Amino acid sequence: MQSLSMYQISVPVFVRGLGILAAYLEKAEAHAKANNIDPAELVNARLAPDMLTLAGQVQRASDTSKNAIGRLSSLEAPRMEDNEVTLADLQARVAKTIAFLETVKPEDLAGSETREVTLSFSKFKTTLKGDAYLLTFTLPNFFFHLTTVHDILRNKGVAVGKIDYLGHFDMVPV
Amino acid sequence: MQSLSMYQISVPVFVRGLGILAAYLEKAEAHAKANNIDPAELVNARLAPDMLTLAGQVQRASDTSKNAIGRLSSLEAPRMEDNEVTLADLQARVAKTIAFLETVKPEDLAGSETREVTLSFSKFKTTLKGDAYLLTFTLPNFFFHLTTVHDILRNKGVAVGKIDYLGHFDMVPV
Repeated sequence: MQSLSMYQISVPVFVRGLGILAAYLEKAEAHAKANNIDPAELVNARLAPDMLTLAGQVQRASDTSKNAIGRLSSLEAPRMEDNEVTLADLQARVAKTIAFLETVKPEDLAGSETREVTLSFSKFKTTLKGDAYLLTFTLPNFFFHLTTVHDILRNKGVAVGKIDYLGHFDMVPV
Repeated sequence: MQSLSMYQISVPVFVRGLGILAAYLEKAEAHAKANNIDPAELVNARLAPDMLTLAGQVQRASDTSKNAIGRLSSLEAPRMEDNEVTLADLQARVAKTIAFLETVKPEDLAGSETREVTLSFSKFKTTLKGDAYLLTFTLPNFFFHLTTVHDILRNKGVAVGKIDYLGHFDMVPV
């Protein structure tokens, strides 16, 4: 009854999500231009004073996806400096993350469902099996940051909608 | 290399997420009490005037999870009326959704990766295979609504943090 691979529920899901993220950044750029506002206002926007900014959300979406592959395979995820300050910088980071993910092959993740992954936080750590790491930590976390980019843009009045978040499906008239 | 079942990447993921949603609703209740504000303010809070309220986000998280099982199996997902007006009503809906999901057995989803699922929107429809439906529509959508509940509460000053969203892991000191 096992019908999906670790690859199938990680790499293409991330690549799809990061493509959606790139489209959000384009809409943010267009919104700033059309409304004659400084794009930095959007880059630095957040929903609460002690929450990450839009830039921080994009960086964490990038990290969550590429570092998951680093932890689940023997590939080394590229390190990134978190030094993005413009929408163009953030676009470049998303593109670089997608480019890395596109080098990953299904066999790179073979057996990763039982690989032990240790997550370290400031004072505590936890060890999870690869499948639990992907399903209970990585995917929720990835979608958290993607959704929060959506929510920040919505809160700032940028015209994005649910269809932007869900992405493209082949639609036919009812 | 197929190592995960359709059940494994749906039911336990939803039950875990809905448990997290229930804990958010408890924190919202406690926040209203401690700050002497009407809980209805939180139930009706939203991030943009034309976005769903907190109540709407909870209803859609419930629908997304239970209806996915309805579409992927021969089980009938319980219909719910979207008539919740209090935090207690929303808690009851989450509990009812979890109770339904807990009746689902792995074999109910056997073969569902190739089952055709048709999604109808106002003017268009799309047909996806079960695995694509789960990975590109259901999981992103479920986490969208869970995250937006988090983001609304954060925006309203309720003391929730990333650890609430990620949920419990067995932690040991570093």
